[in-house]
Amino acid sequence: MTLKVSDIGEKELVKYIIANSNDIVPDDTAITKLNDSNLISTCDMLIQSRHFPENMSYFEMGFKSVTVNVSDLAAMGAEPLGFLLSIAIPKDLPLDAFKKIIEGVLDACNFYSIPLIGGDMNEASEIIISGTALGLCDDPLMKNTYSLDDLILITGDIGHAALGFNMDSPDNIYVNKALKPIARLNEGILIKKAGASSATDITDGLASELYEIKKDGFGFMIYEEMLGISDEYKNISDNLNLDYLDLILHVGEDFELLFTISEDNLENLDIDYKIIGKVTSSDKVEITFENGFSQEIKNKGYEHYVSE
Amino acid sequence: MTLKVSDIGEKELVKYIIANSNDIVPDDTAITKLNDSNLISTCDMLIQSRHFPENMSYFEMGFKSVTVNVSDLAAMGAEPLGFLLSIAIPKDLPLDAFKKIIEGVLDACNFYSIPLIGGDMNEASEIIISGTALGLCDDPLMKNTYSLDDLILITGDIGHAALGFNMDSPDNIYVNKALKPIARLNEGILIKKAGASSATDITDGLASELYEIKKDGFGFMIYEEMLGISDEYKNISDNLNLDYLDLILHVGEDFELLFTISEDNLENLDIDYKIIGKVTSSDKVEITFENGFSQEIKNKGYEHYVSE
Repeated sequence: MTLKVSDIGEKELVKYIIANSNDIVPDDTAITKLNDSNLISTCDMLIQSRHFPENMSYFEMGFKSVTVNVSDLAAMGAEPLGFLLSIAIPKDLPLDAFKKIIEGVLDACNFYSIPLIGGDMNEASEIIISGTALGLCDDPLMKNTYSLDDLILITGDIGHAALGFNMDSPDNIYVNKALKPIARLNEGILIKKAGASSATDITDGLASELYEIKKDGFGFMIYEEMLGISDEYKNISDNLNLDYLDLILHVGEDFELLFTISEDNLENLDIDYKIIGKVTSSDKVEITFENGFSQEIKNKGYEHYVSE
Repeated sequence: MTLKVSDIGEKELVKYIIANSNDIVPDDTAITKLNDSNLISTCDMLIQSRHFPENMSYFEMGFKSVTVNVSDLAAMGAEPLGFLLSIAIPKDLPLDAFKKIIEGVLDACNFYSIPLIGGDMNEASEIIISGTALGLCDDPLMKNTYSLDDLILITGDIGHAALGFNMDSPDNIYVNKALKPIARLNEGILIKKAGASSATDITDGLASELYEIKKDGFGFMIYEEMLGISDEYKNISDNLNLDYLDLILHVGEDFELLFTISEDNLENLDIDYKIIGKVTSSDKVEITFENGFSQEIKNKGYEHYVSE
């Protein structure tokens, strides 16, 4: 029998690449030492049939292609330097659709103050957008450099995009978050300045990111009551026959930052945030529910290629 | 009638992007000023059904995805800094095929001394590889900064890849050039050091590149006898019912450098090269054939999206 990539899954494939390269730092971005600073670089590819829901506009596709890349800069606390756009489109795409995609890209570049500096164009059977974000950072925020008893925090609300992907009605905070997420670029810079001990962005769901940043001997205790879940959120989830905690823990695309900071440095933090838990020595990723019971959180974040 | 992107063609689409952005330098790469140097960045996407001939191995696909990007660094005379690999593969791709692609990428990174520093993985219905090459350059070689009477030169042989794409027999210099082209990275650095006045890489055919670097008031005279076309090349083309000059002028993928240098600086040039012509004031791109007749060269380089 010939082994297929789906037999081993995306994470093992990435591990294979990292194991065979001597130069990859397994964090949110690449880091390259430059004289007195670090070049921060990251690339992310979005493919129409996999990443763009049917109700996403062309403008939003363009905007999101910048956001997903800038979000990785945010997770390092980097200052933006430039954006490269590699785009492939079908030859029968209406010209207006193309212009809307570019408008979305340029609007996002303007919003994040990251200039569009170059790119590449191709023809393909569907829309493919591969962005590269470049930044500078004197002392990048790594994802697993936290200490015991550090507080665990998030920016904004998580789970909103997950709910929005399941809603038909347009124009509410959930659908808006799903279709036009915003990267926390300024927050990332302020988090680093405040002396945070680690950071990553939430693309694959809170649970998956916690497992991503977990290191041996350390664990996390998350408190449901601190996640800021509204009654409205629970009600809408219920009506859609969705488990609200499942949405929040195991579905991503919020592009909020997940970060840690010592209690001492908390007072330096000049952004909106939620404290959601604490770094423990349990070696487990756990949650304490509103009813007081605690339980280990399973790692079932999205993975490409896994056989169904 | 709704206009489609194929109604206006790739070049106009690229012009649209550049016209709407204030930060794109229309050259082989982006250039970003950094303290005492320039960050050079470029991205190129390769799509299996469009860029990889059927007889190309998985290793060669990986290798080429690095070459096409490094070739743009070479055209600026830049020193390599890092490579980002954004790759999408079908879930039923054999694991061994995936490993061969990565082996090709890593072999190329090693060959060009450009470390693989990061990337992204995705699932798609075919293999898509979008690379980003980063480099540094104190004084980048632009593509149209030549002067009247500068000599026009190329590295290596052009047209070989074009012929190789049409040959069934494996393992000859033409097929090898088509399947595993090599970027002229070191030559680019040496060309810059020698005081070349401009450079670009030949991806779309000599004629197309000459039109790409042409500026108002300047022209080029190319001499067929200086192109180094062998009798073997002419014979194989003949046997395949192909016009050898058409292959050389209008089909690309050689990844050789096309550059200009003053006669005074020629003695500084410590690489293998061919002088193929001269910068003129004719405002035309012309060729003098071996029989002594001269003619304007048409611009019919490959363009995506153009309606057939």
